[in-house]
Amino acid sequence: MTAFTATVTVRLKRGVLDPEAETTQRQLERLGFELDDLRSADRFEIDLDAESADGAAERAEEMAERLLANPTIHDYDVEVEQAG
Amino acid sequence: MTAFTATVTVRLKRGVLDPEAETTQRQLERLGFELDDLRSADRFEIDLDAESADGAAERAEEMAERLLANPTIHDYDVEVEQAG
Repeated sequence: MTAFTATVTVRLKRGVLDPEAETTQRQLERLGFELDDLRSADRFEIDLDAESADGAAERAEEMAERLLANPTIHDYDVEVEQAG
Repeated sequence: MTAFTATVTVRLKRGVLDPEAETTQRQLERLGFELDDLRSADRFEIDLDAESADGAAERAEEMAERLLANPTIHDYDVEVEQAG
């Protein structure tokens, strides 16, 4: 078994309203920053042991499907690195 | 001016308690997943125009300092890509 870190990024699907991101964007504009758009996402960094990077990615995808993401409103992606 | 996307990742500093991440980890374990640790972070994807990637990164860092991160409890990092 090898130690891996899987990073799961969970984003709202395009078209789903994100009032928190809109508020953050407006606050930045009020502070004088110019920006075209701001999107927010949740990021989970998960340390786990697996036989291979593929095995770790598969397990992290299953975690996303079962708990971390809501498939109705979220997209997610998974990246895996060997822990250093 | 060129269009860039700056990604700002805001994490709790080591040692700062993260009850939400602990709850998520426990829920995953209750679902039968084995994991060593889970950390959560906020990710902001900001579309902005700048003269250069360095200029975009500098602006995103200023946004992190002024609004997105709380220096007492957060670390952050910034990555910039040219928008596709």
